[in-house]
Amino acid sequence: MNTPTPLLDQIKSPADLKGRTKAELRQIADELRAETISAVSVTGGHLGAGLGVVELTVAIHAVFDTPKDRLVWDVGHQAYPHKILTGRRDRIRTLRQGGGLSGFTKRDESEYDPFGAAHAGTSVSAAAGFAVARDLMGGDNRAIAVVGDGAMSAGMIYEAMNNAGAMHAPLIVILNDNDMSIAPPVGAMSHYLSRTVSSKGYRQVRNLAKRVTRKIGLEGLVKKAEHSIRSFNMGGDLFDALGFYYVGPIDGHDMNALVDVLENVRDHPGPVLVHVVTQKGKGYEHAENAADKYHGVTKFNVVTGEQAKAKAGPPSYTKVFAQELVRWAEKDEKVVGITAAMPSGTGLDYFGQRFPDRMFDVGIAEQHAVTFAAGLAAEGLVPFAAIYSTFLQRGYDSVVHDVAIQKLPVRFALDRAGLVGADGATHAGSFDVGFLGALPGFVLMAAADEVELQRMVATAHAIDDRPSAFRYPRGEGVGLQMLDDPQPLEIGKGRIVKQGTAVAILSFGARLQECLKAADMLEKQGLSTTVADARFAKPLDEALLAQLAKNHEVLITIEEGAKGGFGAFVLHSLAEHGQLDKGLRVRTLTLPDVFQDHDSPDKMYEFAGLDARSIAATAIKALGRGDERALKLIAG
Amino acid sequence: MNTPTPLLDQIKSPADLKGRTKAELRQIADELRAETISAVSVTGGHLGAGLGVVELTVAIHAVFDTPKDRLVWDVGHQAYPHKILTGRRDRIRTLRQGGGLSGFTKRDESEYDPFGAAHAGTSVSAAAGFAVARDLMGGDNRAIAVVGDGAMSAGMIYEAMNNAGAMHAPLIVILNDNDMSIAPPVGAMSHYLSRTVSSKGYRQVRNLAKRVTRKIGLEGLVKKAEHSIRSFNMGGDLFDALGFYYVGPIDGHDMNALVDVLENVRDHPGPVLVHVVTQKGKGYEHAENAADKYHGVTKFNVVTGEQAKAKAGPPSYTKVFAQELVRWAEKDEKVVGITAAMPSGTGLDYFGQRFPDRMFDVGIAEQHAVTFAAGLAAEGLVPFAAIYSTFLQRGYDSVVHDVAIQKLPVRFALDRAGLVGADGATHAGSFDVGFLGALPGFVLMAAADEVELQRMVATAHAIDDRPSAFRYPRGEGVGLQMLDDPQPLEIGKGRIVKQGTAVAILSFGARLQECLKAADMLEKQGLSTTVADARFAKPLDEALLAQLAKNHEVLITIEEGAKGGFGAFVLHSLAEHGQLDKGLRVRTLTLPDVFQDHDSPDKMYEFAGLDARSIAATAIKALGRGDERALKLIAG
Repeated sequence: MNTPTPLLDQIKSPADLKGRTKAELRQIADELRAETISAVSVTGGHLGAGLGVVELTVAIHAVFDTPKDRLVWDVGHQAYPHKILTGRRDRIRTLRQGGGLSGFTKRDESEYDPFGAAHAGTSVSAAAGFAVARDLMGGDNRAIAVVGDGAMSAGMIYEAMNNAGAMHAPLIVILNDNDMSIAPPVGAMSHYLSRTVSSKGYRQVRNLAKRVTRKIGLEGLVKKAEHSIRSFNMGGDLFDALGFYYVGPIDGHDMNALVDVLENVRDHPGPVLVHVVTQKGKGYEHAENAADKYHGVTKFNVVTGEQAKAKAGPPSYTKVFAQELVRWAEKDEKVVGITAAMPSGTGLDYFGQRFPDRMFDVGIAEQHAVTFAAGLAAEGLVPFAAIYSTFLQRGYDSVVHDVAIQKLPVRFALDRAGLVGADGATHAGSFDVGFLGALPGFVLMAAADEVELQRMVATAHAIDDRPSAFRYPRGEGVGLQMLDDPQPLEIGKGRIVKQGTAVAILSFGARLQECLKAADMLEKQGLSTTVADARFAKPLDEALLAQLAKNHEVLITIEEGAKGGFGAFVLHSLAEHGQLDKGLRVRTLTLPDVFQDHDSPDKMYEFAGLDARSIAATAIKALGRGDERALKLIAG
Repeated sequence: MNTPTPLLDQIKSPADLKGRTKAELRQIADELRAETISAVSVTGGHLGAGLGVVELTVAIHAVFDTPKDRLVWDVGHQAYPHKILTGRRDRIRTLRQGGGLSGFTKRDESEYDPFGAAHAGTSVSAAAGFAVARDLMGGDNRAIAVVGDGAMSAGMIYEAMNNAGAMHAPLIVILNDNDMSIAPPVGAMSHYLSRTVSSKGYRQVRNLAKRVTRKIGLEGLVKKAEHSIRSFNMGGDLFDALGFYYVGPIDGHDMNALVDVLENVRDHPGPVLVHVVTQKGKGYEHAENAADKYHGVTKFNVVTGEQAKAKAGPPSYTKVFAQELVRWAEKDEKVVGITAAMPSGTGLDYFGQRFPDRMFDVGIAEQHAVTFAAGLAAEGLVPFAAIYSTFLQRGYDSVVHDVAIQKLPVRFALDRAGLVGADGATHAGSFDVGFLGALPGFVLMAAADEVELQRMVATAHAIDDRPSAFRYPRGEGVGLQMLDDPQPLEIGKGRIVKQGTAVAILSFGARLQECLKAADMLEKQGLSTTVADARFAKPLDEALLAQLAKNHEVLITIEEGAKGGFGAFVLHSLAEHGQLDKGLRVRTLTLPDVFQDHDSPDKMYEFAGLDARSIAATAIKALGRGDERALKLIAG
């Protein structure tokens, strides 16, 4: 779009914000908002969160001395305006594209991103590290964390505040309270913040806040009695208890208030929490009016707000899971669903519409989510904990200590398994096969397609004597006819999808289609190829393994995960049973040993060597034929 | 000891406490304390925590209807008196012995342990699960969690309270505040609780608490205004903000007060927090007077309090680590140490005595500990995060998301790697090799002995461009002469300890001595044996691997960890390089695919098949000699 941005055009770095009047900063914010909308209309991405913090972003960079002052944006998906102000405007229309800017903050990308983030709740810990390092090394810079109210449900934030509040190192936490993370936030803290903001009459409190906070700069720490009264009146008692000096609430779209307050707290001699109230999607009518405030959008028309529609295709795995969960919940009143602040991302919102009393959104709280589910299971309920693979990393000890050791039948629905495209390395589901498959007693499945996912939900429902998990990728199924009455799988049994004689490809998960394509390529080279779907990484189908090992010259395993997962378990089993003693050309295809940057999923899998051509080439190379012609054919 | 316990002798189950007068309960508590002291004097174990909750244990079982009412003890090591009261008195002198009672609560052991625990901070999540399940299924029982103030630094507790406080399900959390977990607790919450207890005059508040709490039963929820005043006066505002009705502080050794208050809150129609103040080690003079309040003890003389001394031997790995950390901190002022509430267990107390400003005990807060360390590393400090293998499970996402993806040089000192003996399955360090070794860019080491540990600390200190970890077991080194000037290892290079020709044993970690013993056994059978120490699981020494694979008939890997770890990485590498194509008798010895109950470490490793005889037998079987005589010789 061609909205003119005369002042913003002058801002090459935050230094260009210094000495500006508040009116100019106000105008820069307006222009920054227009530029953010324009950029995201082209790239898609996270919009609502960034729009909510436009004024805050300008005020922070105007008041603080970044990058010397360390600014950590929690989650980082609200940092597009920050990227525009910090020398990345020329690349802002490459956001989330291959080779372009990350959709999150990233250390590699700019000195203005001193700590990358993408999972919620890490910023205060990192900023506390910056503050302590400064004090140890005799520095004089500031450490600032900007954290959303949604992230306040994360235990990690509490751990960090509890620690930082006791250490007394100067540290500024800005609580960006928009009463909304991805979904409306849950939990007592959220209610507490809402009460704080609403109960006193907003303007009145805002004015009071201004008066009180101005005192900080002038008088240093207010006296204890005064302090108590202030806290009690203004709702900050909880933060005071954690050792933070509470200031707020402040209108996060009032540039004057923001600049005044930030200047006043800038050199506060201890931990301070500034409670800023913002509106997600602020200043863009279509975002403000949407239920999700345009949290994540596809490309869109700026004037109409209309988002590009995905072309009609098979249902997403997420949707298939949600439908199947409802199916079983209708048959079994003990089925309950748990999500950690991802009702829509996991499809549990659909389940919750049908069974509101049996759906639990516990907040960004994966440790609690898992152990809460374990408690439900201990009482005989049938809990499905729907957590992205990458986020389950946060609940790992709960999985080990509370679920696996106690053999409690919690069912884990692991969405976003494998590479995830535009969200990049921080959101990839790379490690779950290894970290769950190592646990005694676990049943671990991966769905090759949407019909398999149907049957795996049925299987997990049926497994009532131990924990189970099934993983499935981001995106759509392959377009199969769905089953009307999906039956559970036999536990620990894989299937032969295509029988051959020379090469065996054993797939765990959704690369099965690529394996079949690879088989076609190999057949054209005269190599009869078997394709099998392992279905289970644990327990392994050792009979199938023995058969594949015995009857083929080459055995290739493939999975959407890192080394130490499915392929490793296959190798352990082959070694244990002596099936490698006399020679087997076995190759394990896994994600590569790098954190892959964001790109389209297809390109990422090609880079990873998990596409059909790479699979076929691996087989030919393993056979040691040195057949350059065949390799070239396969390479296209 | 022969202290008579006439009343306690009548208590076969908690039902026998019903209808007792408070005076009788008081006497039962006294007898229970004597019995607990007597039992632990024989077995060793956790003493101080149990003594602090003797009255609370009696009061809970007298007031509540266990096991129908679900009682969850956080951590579980304070539950010895609970075990004595709940039908396990006859086995109490088998605590922590092989085949005996667990030192923690355990579902398998008793219906009075509805949820096992050993890591801190899980109880409220589990109890919330019990409460919700009850309400969904129309039950009328209660859910009670007893949690220490030390565990209040764990983010998981906050996540659970934030969620439970908003769900409004009746749930009773008893905060057992002894101002002490293993070490004195840290963090703002701890100060907050101390202020609450101390500032008002204890008795005065206690009396007020009684009056107020009596109202609950009579009048239900007090009115909002009254509520606010109560909170403000009594210090419970923080818990009120989290949606819990706060009651306290209560003297946890006053049976009358405990019974009255618990009866009053028993049927409170929502989440309630009862703040109970206790004294760790209460009622046993020697424990009360000790700095650690006899947190964990060896066998001891009840009269003198004198604990059995371990026989003089080599220094513990923990001590070696601590000494080496001090060595490097003396040379490099940027070295800092981080512990998550385990200063003494990790040896960081020793470091902290020498460098108080550079030692950070962040509380039971592993997620924060890791990301805080990442923040320190981002500023150029040299952080060593000393966290037990089992507890690092709780910080896994921080390791992935904040350390590994950002390639920050945090050094992880992983104590208690492998099996840990009396602490059992919950404390075993079984999974770290897999879950860390899967991460791109990590350097992962395991120490074969104390001298290797010296060099690995030096190596980690030197690695300043990526994350690293070194693991070492619980217990003592092997008695080597320590190095005066330990030098860093070459990264990714193992070593041949003994050169042979037929069998190769490749050890990762502290089973190296067993490997050497196994080699002796094999040599006696005429099998020339190589023993190598891999030192690194990542990066692997592929040249060493190639040499071992090429020049031997059998290759055995061994590690103190689960499948998917070191052996798996070796197999991946061998497969990738075609070293299995022509046949290799490779076997991977790992921990077995079960959670092993507590026993002596030697017996546990024997069961795991990681002792010298099992290693040797594996080699002979792999050779397919069917040599029954040799196997028998090896089997002793």
